[in-house]
Amino acid sequence: MSRPHRRATVHDIAAAAGVSRGTVSRVLNGGYVSAEARAAIEAAITEVGYVPNNAARALKMRRSQAVAFVALEPHSLFLDDPNIGSIMLGANAALSLADHQMVSLVVESARDTERVARYLSGGFVDGAIVVSARTRDPIIKVISELALPAAFVGHPPDLDQSIPFVGIDNAGSAQAITARLLAGGRRRIGMIAAALDRDSGIDRLAGFKAALGTAYDAELVADVPHYDYGSGVKGMRALLAAEPAIDGVFAASDAIAAGALEALREAGRSVPGDVGVVGFDDSTWAVRCQPQLSTVHQPAKQLGSCAAQLVLRQLRGEVLEPGGQLLPTPIVWRESA
Amino acid sequence: MSRPHRRATVHDIAAAAGVSRGTVSRVLNGGYVSAEARAAIEAAITEVGYVPNNAARALKMRRSQAVAFVALEPHSLFLDDPNIGSIMLGANAALSLADHQMVSLVVESARDTERVARYLSGGFVDGAIVVSARTRDPIIKVISELALPAAFVGHPPDLDQSIPFVGIDNAGSAQAITARLLAGGRRRIGMIAAALDRDSGIDRLAGFKAALGTAYDAELVADVPHYDYGSGVKGMRALLAAEPAIDGVFAASDAIAAGALEALREAGRSVPGDVGVVGFDDSTWAVRCQPQLSTVHQPAKQLGSCAAQLVLRQLRGEVLEPGGQLLPTPIVWRESA
Repeated sequence: MSRPHRRATVHDIAAAAGVSRGTVSRVLNGGYVSAEARAAIEAAITEVGYVPNNAARALKMRRSQAVAFVALEPHSLFLDDPNIGSIMLGANAALSLADHQMVSLVVESARDTERVARYLSGGFVDGAIVVSARTRDPIIKVISELALPAAFVGHPPDLDQSIPFVGIDNAGSAQAITARLLAGGRRRIGMIAAALDRDSGIDRLAGFKAALGTAYDAELVADVPHYDYGSGVKGMRALLAAEPAIDGVFAASDAIAAGALEALREAGRSVPGDVGVVGFDDSTWAVRCQPQLSTVHQPAKQLGSCAAQLVLRQLRGEVLEPGGQLLPTPIVWRESA
Repeated sequence: MSRPHRRATVHDIAAAAGVSRGTVSRVLNGGYVSAEARAAIEAAITEVGYVPNNAARALKMRRSQAVAFVALEPHSLFLDDPNIGSIMLGANAALSLADHQMVSLVVESARDTERVARYLSGGFVDGAIVVSARTRDPIIKVISELALPAAFVGHPPDLDQSIPFVGIDNAGSAQAITARLLAGGRRRIGMIAAALDRDSGIDRLAGFKAALGTAYDAELVADVPHYDYGSGVKGMRALLAAEPAIDGVFAASDAIAAGALEALREAGRSVPGDVGVVGFDDSTWAVRCQPQLSTVHQPAKQLGSCAAQLVLRQLRGEVLEPGGQLLPTPIVWRESA
């Protein structure tokens, strides 16, 4: 049952066919050899199970036909954020149509960072899509220095401005859904703000403040580290402690909103009767919750597909304008507010 | 703001240094050149921003130091199954320690299948980890034919038996948790069985039957296509229609169990009072549910890390025994039964 794990080489073909390696190479590269030698070599190719090495061909063309999909912060992305799967599938579909192989790379440790930076600079990929980019990340530095065709999903303002991005208007979307809560008659509205070390977190809080204007009360903001369920439970408990009369909550993600619903249940508050809750993402969480969430729709699949297009256009030689594009984020109003 | 997108070559260095390409190659490969030429070439390398092509080096060594992580059925894996992220992170951590780059490949369409098969056979990776392998998949065929060092997560019995696997005992685990439901005094126990076209689905149903023995009633099995929440809602409605006196349910996944809780809420049944519900996976669903799920723990991270070890051992030249290993799956008893 054991298998030989060595790939057959030109050398093996030559030995099996009883010809020189040069003759085998001529056949493989479409050159002239005698009919007899060609027949012997073709039989030998089948016999030894030779498969041409496309990595070699890619190298000759200086193109690998592969594009990296780099997920920074994989723990929160892969375990807590249901959008990452959709972004990946969207990017893969667009790259696949253009006959490019998407290779997804996980960066979790310092060791990963170094190795992925080497991989990106090593000729294995022609370009890169980066999700959750952060300033001063060594991987972003490598991409900038190499001028590797790249695109960001999201748009931290202080990153290499020559790298195009696709994202959403976090501030505008947060402002719009908070305004809708206000329009529904809620008067003591709090926010569970998350990831305030990232542009998405900062912008969602800015939008919340903008919607409330002079009614904004810093006491009614619970600051939690991650966009996850557990943070939502804790954040909501903190808000209830700070203001028992709270009647509206904007959660920075659907997972946080789901956690908030749990904490409100614990506290005996009804939703949307006593407290209206809204989320952000329109991920699978939104429809699993009881009641289902009113939320901001993130076009995750399209974000992936647009980022892939930005890389493919650079690979076709287009010089893109700096900057990026923001995709629309409609509000989806369900039952939680 | 536009950037040149061509990688600098040996030719560029030679032009900038005013020496021949052969001289540049000698420096890059550690050969002898005059101190003067060396200084000029080193300055030129910095000037043109040359980065050595590791893909070329990998090719020469016939090793890419990369291992593919191939997720078949990406839709259900990436969007419905919270385990896939943990399996990926587990595999990545183990490969990273051994200085191998994990490249995750998505296979969603026929186009993807062909391209990924070419990629696997093209010298870009040294081995592959395959999740959700299915018989007759063209990708499995390519791996078998190439004798590419590989490992499966899961163990469909009719796949290439020379490829090692790591998995869990689905039948034994299902039997154990059903027995625990029975031991709690439940008498009319149904199952929401899913994915009966796959070994995991078939084995979980077999374990359920084995636990019930002569008490098994085929009327109390709802057969749903996927391991997802929506299937759980529908499956539970079907069971309630078939047997209004049902007092226990084994759901083939935690996501299904979460859907079942929703359908039971709709029908005005209390959990665990009227109906005891148990799941399978111990994924993030289990603790998000209300009440939290009693379930079978799947060691997702370890599955990924063991599969990576199986590939690494082959890359080190070990010839593995055929077959595989089953990891323990403790029962986690919470509040839903």
